[in-house]
Amino acid sequence: MSENMATARACANIAFIKYWGNTDDLLRLPVNGSLSMNLNGLYAETTVHWDATLCEDALILNGKPAEDAARQRVATHLNMMRERLGLTGFAAVESQNNFPMGAGIASSAAAFAALTVAAAQAGQLELSERELTTLARLGSGSASRSVPTGFVEWYAGETHEESYAESFAPPEHWNLVDVIAVVSGEHKAVVSARGHQTASTSDLQPARVRGAAERLTVCKNAILNRDFAAFAEVVEYDSNLMHAVMMTSRPPLFYWLPATLTIMQAVRLWRTEGLSVCYTLDAGPNVHCLCLGDDAQAVESRLQGLPGVEKVLVARAGHGAEVITPTS
Amino acid sequence: MSENMATARACANIAFIKYWGNTDDLLRLPVNGSLSMNLNGLYAETTVHWDATLCEDALILNGKPAEDAARQRVATHLNMMRERLGLTGFAAVESQNNFPMGAGIASSAAAFAALTVAAAQAGQLELSERELTTLARLGSGSASRSVPTGFVEWYAGETHEESYAESFAPPEHWNLVDVIAVVSGEHKAVVSARGHQTASTSDLQPARVRGAAERLTVCKNAILNRDFAAFAEVVEYDSNLMHAVMMTSRPPLFYWLPATLTIMQAVRLWRTEGLSVCYTLDAGPNVHCLCLGDDAQAVESRLQGLPGVEKVLVARAGHGAEVITPTS
Repeated sequence: MSENMATARACANIAFIKYWGNTDDLLRLPVNGSLSMNLNGLYAETTVHWDATLCEDALILNGKPAEDAARQRVATHLNMMRERLGLTGFAAVESQNNFPMGAGIASSAAAFAALTVAAAQAGQLELSERELTTLARLGSGSASRSVPTGFVEWYAGETHEESYAESFAPPEHWNLVDVIAVVSGEHKAVVSARGHQTASTSDLQPARVRGAAERLTVCKNAILNRDFAAFAEVVEYDSNLMHAVMMTSRPPLFYWLPATLTIMQAVRLWRTEGLSVCYTLDAGPNVHCLCLGDDAQAVESRLQGLPGVEKVLVARAGHGAEVITPTS
Repeated sequence: MSENMATARACANIAFIKYWGNTDDLLRLPVNGSLSMNLNGLYAETTVHWDATLCEDALILNGKPAEDAARQRVATHLNMMRERLGLTGFAAVESQNNFPMGAGIASSAAAFAALTVAAAQAGQLELSERELTTLARLGSGSASRSVPTGFVEWYAGETHEESYAESFAPPEHWNLVDVIAVVSGEHKAVVSARGHQTASTSDLQPARVRGAAERLTVCKNAILNRDFAAFAEVVEYDSNLMHAVMMTSRPPLFYWLPATLTIMQAVRLWRTEGLSVCYTLDAGPNVHCLCLGDDAQAVESRLQGLPGVEKVLVARAGHGAEVITPTS
C-alpha cells in the first residue's frame, strides 16, 4: 500500500443504555453516558488516502461515488481532523458496509469509527484509543463506542476530551448474541429520520436523562455478573424510555412499524416461556433481540416465523476498530 | 314502572386530556384533571330496583347473570351508595351496553354513570348533578365525566367533594365526530389490562402530570374556540404521553396492536393531506379518530380500507346521563 494510505475496519454497535440528545450538538456531547456492544461481522471498511494532488475530498461509498450529503458529512469530519491534528491536503476515501444502511443498524457509528482510525493511521499519527474515540464522536456520537473492543462505555463528559469511550469487558466475556429482526419497510413514509435535536422538545426527556446514570450502573453490573434477568429488565426499560421520548417529541417521532410492535411483544412472551431474550431498538424499526448464545438459534427461527420480518442478522460481541493494512 | 325502580342511560365518553393514575386509589382521586366528550349513541342503559325482599344485590348484564367479578364491583358501588346516602335493602340491577365491552371504549364509564343515576333516582333521592358525578367517580373514575352533558371537565380535586365533573359546552357547540377504529384482537394475549396503580412506576409519570393542567387549558380553549389545529396537536400529545407512561411502567403496559400503530400513522398522514382529523387512544388498542363533521365520512371510509380494522363506529357529541323512565 502506498504512503499516506490506510484501511481500517470497525463494527456497528448496539446500545444497551441509549444515547439520545446532546448538551452540545456541535461537539456531540451527550446528555447521558451510554453502554453498548460491538456487533461482530457487521462492519464498515474504510480506506483513506491523503493525497496532496487532490483539490477536494472524494468519497466512494459501497462502490459508487457518494451523494453530496454523505460526501459533505465526511468532508466536515476530515476538516475537523485536519484542524485538530495538523493534517494537510485532501483525502480520497473509500468505504463499504457489509450490512444494510439506514435501517436502525448504526451504520454511521461503524463508518465514522473506521474513517477516524483510517484517517489518523494514513496521516501517520500515533493517537491513543481514547483520543480516537473522541474524534470519532465528532463525526457520529455513537461512533465513539465502535472504537474500543467488546462491551463499551461512553462517558458523557463535559468537554471534548472528557467525552470518550472505553471497553469494560472483552468480547469473550459473555456469550451474548444480537439477533436482529430487519422488518419490512412498508409505511416508511411516515417514519421520520430526524434526530437528537428533537429530544429536548419532549416533556419526558429530563426524567429519562435523570435516571440514565443509575440504569447504566445496573446494566454494567448485569453484564459484568452475566445476570441476564437483570440485564433484560434494564435494557428493555431503557429502550422503552427512549422511544417514549421520541414519540412525545414535538413533532413526534414514531420509528416503530407495526411489525416492530409484534416482535417486541413476542420477545416478552418468549421470555416468559423460558428463553433468555430481550429487545432493544435504536432509532429505527428493526428489533435487536439480545439473547444468550444457547437460545440464539431458537430466537432466530422464531423471528423468521413472524409476519413482517424481512430478514434476520446474527451478531456476537465484536472487537474494536482496527487497522487492517499497514502504511508503507 | 314500580316504586323504587328507575332506568337511566349514560353515554361512553372519550377523553381528550387523559386520566391516568390516582392520588387516592380508594376514592379514585385522579392525579390530574381531565377533559372529555360524551359519545352519542354509545351508551349503557341500566335499571335499578331497590327491593327489600332481596338478600343480596343481583346483576343481569347484557341479558345474562353477570360473572362474579362484575357483580362484586357493582355490589361494592351499591354499598358505597347505601352508606353515603342512607339507602337500605339490596338492588336488582339490569344493565346493557349497545357497544363492545372491554376494547378501549370506556364501557365502565357509561355503566357506572348510568348505575349511579338510576340507583339514586330509584331511591327517590334528589341529588345535584355535581354530587352524582362524585358518586359515579367512586365506581369508575371516568364515569364522573359521563354524567354531565356534551364537553366535560373533571376537576382533580383533593377531596371526594372537590373531585367532580361539569359540562363546559353543550353537544351542539362543536360538530366534532369520533370515528372509532375497532382493531382486530390478535396478539391480545400480551396486551395487559392492569391499570391506574401502575402509573407511578414509570419515571415519566411526574412529567406527564406536571404538564397536564396546561394541556387541559390549551385543549379547553381549542374546543371553546373551535380551533381544530390546536385541538389536534394537544390531544395527540396528551395521548402519546399517557401511552409513553404506560409502556415505561414496570412491568410495561403495551395497549397497542400493530394495527393501532398503522392507524395512528395514517391519521397523521391524512391530516397533512388536509383532513381535519387527529387520534387519541384510551387504555386499549382501538383508535379514536376525532374529526370535524365535514370529514367524518372520508375518515370512516379510509379507516375501512386499512389492514386490521375490524369495524368502525361513529359518534357525535352526546348528552349527559338521564333518567329515561320516571319512578311511580
